[in-house]
Amino acid sequence: MPEPIEGDTMSKVRVHNFSISIDGFGTGEGLTLDAPFGHAGERLHEWMFKTKMWTDMIGETGGNTGVDNAFAVQHGPGIGAEIMGRGKFGPPHQGPWTNLGTDEEWRGWWGPNPPFHTPVFVMTHHTRPSFSLSDTTFHFVNDDPATVLKQAQAAAEGKDVRIGGGATTVREFLDAGLVDTMHVAIADIELGSGARLWESPDELDDRFHHEVVPSPTGLTTHHLFWRR
Amino acid sequence: MPEPIEGDTMSKVRVHNFSISIDGFGTGEGLTLDAPFGHAGERLHEWMFKTKMWTDMIGETGGNTGVDNAFAVQHGPGIGAEIMGRGKFGPPHQGPWTNLGTDEEWRGWWGPNPPFHTPVFVMTHHTRPSFSLSDTTFHFVNDDPATVLKQAQAAAEGKDVRIGGGATTVREFLDAGLVDTMHVAIADIELGSGARLWESPDELDDRFHHEVVPSPTGLTTHHLFWRR
Repeated sequence: MPEPIEGDTMSKVRVHNFSISIDGFGTGEGLTLDAPFGHAGERLHEWMFKTKMWTDMIGETGGNTGVDNAFAVQHGPGIGAEIMGRGKFGPPHQGPWTNLGTDEEWRGWWGPNPPFHTPVFVMTHHTRPSFSLSDTTFHFVNDDPATVLKQAQAAAEGKDVRIGGGATTVREFLDAGLVDTMHVAIADIELGSGARLWESPDELDDRFHHEVVPSPTGLTTHHLFWRR
Repeated sequence: MPEPIEGDTMSKVRVHNFSISIDGFGTGEGLTLDAPFGHAGERLHEWMFKTKMWTDMIGETGGNTGVDNAFAVQHGPGIGAEIMGRGKFGPPHQGPWTNLGTDEEWRGWWGPNPPFHTPVFVMTHHTRPSFSLSDTTFHFVNDDPATVLKQAQAAAEGKDVRIGGGATTVREFLDAGLVDTMHVAIADIELGSGARLWESPDELDDRFHHEVVPSPTGLTTHHLFWRR
């Protein structure tokens, strides 16, 4: 069975492992430094914690290599840049960065070695200087999705661009018609409030092929979208 | 969402995209140069031809990025060597290589750029000198599975080893307890005869976790196995 060697080499815009509730929320309410997903807690992402991708990442062994893992591992390969909203870069806070209430400058949730390993473009009305942590460089941009995408694609040097979330950012890129492929993992819980991706996954069916794959783990249902 | 960075780094033995009939046959009968899968034809692999992995490989666009593709693309990454049976290296023929009936030396089905890009170990009672085509080198070995695996792991330099098939070879490695993870794709056809992987997929449940994922394409059902 051959490897991909040529073919469709145009830079794509991809969403991966975006985890939401059955009523469409990517985070809950009441977001704090200790509860970055608010009242959603870790329930949306439980499917991911059971995969070999995750156990490898945290330096453990085991983890399943079933369908959840097959989707989880697609997050990285071929990606040359990520775009995220300020709501993902966090912390749960609006307004200028100087209002954080701490002396320390916020440099993301991820510590000294963030898991992106590419340029990351953070969409925010409050721009600030770029900085690097290990092999990840964060840029702060105040532009519309199409303009930010052009910058990210230039930085990606021919590779794909991942829209990393949150829900508001993914929705902006969907509404602008800029997303090529999307993987959404829907946990069987209702949140009732928070940041919402959609009312229903069928909203996108006029523009995307839509495949639904319930996981045998029972922890999530995978929804795959690719352009018609 | 982070990338795998450490964790379980031991070289694994993996089977991917191994396509069989519901009655367990990986090829049919009546294998010829023009029909390498015999009376099975291309029916076992139809699910793969619809994926983006495949359309990329043959230089076309389109192709689905759903669950079939998510499994298909796992074939290559992390692999440092393949082991295959003479039945896969072909042609449909037994005995010494000099009995091929042609003046030309058989160098595999895959032309000048085989899709392996690693060392390949062909298990055969009729050894012959190694040769390279592009970045693939074929070695011919007459040894038991454990011995061949040691050679392949040395050649893989810490990466994983793929058992490439056919059915007889995969079964030999399963029976020797040497397979860590396996992906089998079962097409909804019966073949009745040919080279058989198993009587039933449940045969392995005492030794493996076993997950069953019907594809929404209707072209196959994915069976995933990983060691208990």
